[in-house]
Amino acid sequence: MSEPVNKRPIGVFDSGLGGLTVLKAVMARLPHEDTIYFGDSGRAPYGSKSADTVTKFSLQNARFLLEQQVKMIIIACNTASSRAFDAVSQSAGLPVIEVIGPGARAAAQATRNRRIGVIGTRGTVDSQVYPAAIRRCLDGPADIYQQACPLFVSLAEEGWWDRPVTYDIARIYLEPLLERGIDTLVLGCTHYPLLSGVIAAAAGPDVRLVNAGAPIAGIVAQTLERTGLINDSRLPGKHVYFTSDSVEQFKTLGSAFLDEPVEQAYRIDIERY
Amino acid sequence: MSEPVNKRPIGVFDSGLGGLTVLKAVMARLPHEDTIYFGDSGRAPYGSKSADTVTKFSLQNARFLLEQQVKMIIIACNTASSRAFDAVSQSAGLPVIEVIGPGARAAAQATRNRRIGVIGTRGTVDSQVYPAAIRRCLDGPADIYQQACPLFVSLAEEGWWDRPVTYDIARIYLEPLLERGIDTLVLGCTHYPLLSGVIAAAAGPDVRLVNAGAPIAGIVAQTLERTGLINDSRLPGKHVYFTSDSVEQFKTLGSAFLDEPVEQAYRIDIERY
Repeated sequence: MSEPVNKRPIGVFDSGLGGLTVLKAVMARLPHEDTIYFGDSGRAPYGSKSADTVTKFSLQNARFLLEQQVKMIIIACNTASSRAFDAVSQSAGLPVIEVIGPGARAAAQATRNRRIGVIGTRGTVDSQVYPAAIRRCLDGPADIYQQACPLFVSLAEEGWWDRPVTYDIARIYLEPLLERGIDTLVLGCTHYPLLSGVIAAAAGPDVRLVNAGAPIAGIVAQTLERTGLINDSRLPGKHVYFTSDSVEQFKTLGSAFLDEPVEQAYRIDIERY
Repeated sequence: MSEPVNKRPIGVFDSGLGGLTVLKAVMARLPHEDTIYFGDSGRAPYGSKSADTVTKFSLQNARFLLEQQVKMIIIACNTASSRAFDAVSQSAGLPVIEVIGPGARAAAQATRNRRIGVIGTRGTVDSQVYPAAIRRCLDGPADIYQQACPLFVSLAEEGWWDRPVTYDIARIYLEPLLERGIDTLVLGCTHYPLLSGVIAAAAGPDVRLVNAGAPIAGIVAQTLERTGLINDSRLPGKHVYFTSDSVEQFKTLGSAFLDEPVEQAYRIDIERY
């Protein structure tokens, strides 16, 4: 007899390690769910790559997760969410969660002056999905300003989370947004929560930072409840990790991103999917 | 009747755009040679990826070039040269040029105090190929100090070639090497020549920078002459470019790296090779 669908794991993929900040929020909110995470570190980063390359990679990642019998897929990467959500959603045949909508809704709720900044990779910014999603959540006019911050992913992966030079780079990126008088700033990349101390310092006390981790976990919980897919186990969930590059490196860096040890990690050849 | 072998193009590959600094030196030295360049921007960068991922990618890149009937392959990437030279060389069946040896020899000739610094990606540094190659060129003892500079590739691709913050980052990376009293510094990554102004400023006037572009072009010329493969045409060489990501992006950034327009560029699906 096959396992009931609600006992199956939640599948999560990202270009590499950034999505672990989303997984962390999901694990906190839904401690009894099993999860399978795939980080495409062998082909990371996605942020500066073209829409069709990101779509092709995302479909391969989703096929790998489907083969693991997941009950849901979380695209824990803003670039992949902005470029490939429709393609993954249409091909998956099960609930697919993206990370743009929750951040956009949180920003719409947070703003007072309707001047909102969005920072992300070049791919996410070029896709224009955040301005469109934020406008859908707000009645009436709003001013939305975007800034691509390509160095932030390298700084996050390098562990330079609170260096003075990271602060200087944040100042350079944020200056054009601050000049526009934004009161809310969306961290539109799953790597950026690691830099939130420096980003908050550069943005100053009048700007609210939107980290979509908790709102995304909320959507995941709602979707599981609505579809009857929530795991009714009382045991702690099991967490398994796959990467397209070195397992050792994934374990070391991943444990820092997740703030707890990555124990079970395996390598796969994603190009076969 | 098939084309004489010496009329065939020289094949060059890199993880993305950095190898164009090598191609530029080869074009200057050998203006009558046709070239085919493949930049694996869809899977770039290679510098932080594991040895076997870099080897797998490099073998695919070489297979693509072999299909184009090249007469020689230049691995215009330090990470790929350090990780995959033997594998590519054994499988290619034609002359394969790597970029570590020429830089190591130039460093051995340049040093006076036998204290040499090497900067590169994490992959190149971990491979220890530079210290081994430099020691082979020097009789007697030598002190070789390495430093991985993972942010330099992003800064080069971002076009932040002479920003104050790039100088600050260079200071952070170079400080441990300068404390050791090096008199020579190898730019052990084909992206770094773009940052040479800032790196030279951070290193100070007493340190000689080694950019292996011209020495690599010299080895290419010698090898072609020795093997009778030099193109005796008097016409300017033709240069064709392939990328595994967006052609538009390759043309825009590539023209900046090469300092002349990239005209004929095409996209390929490298995972098929």
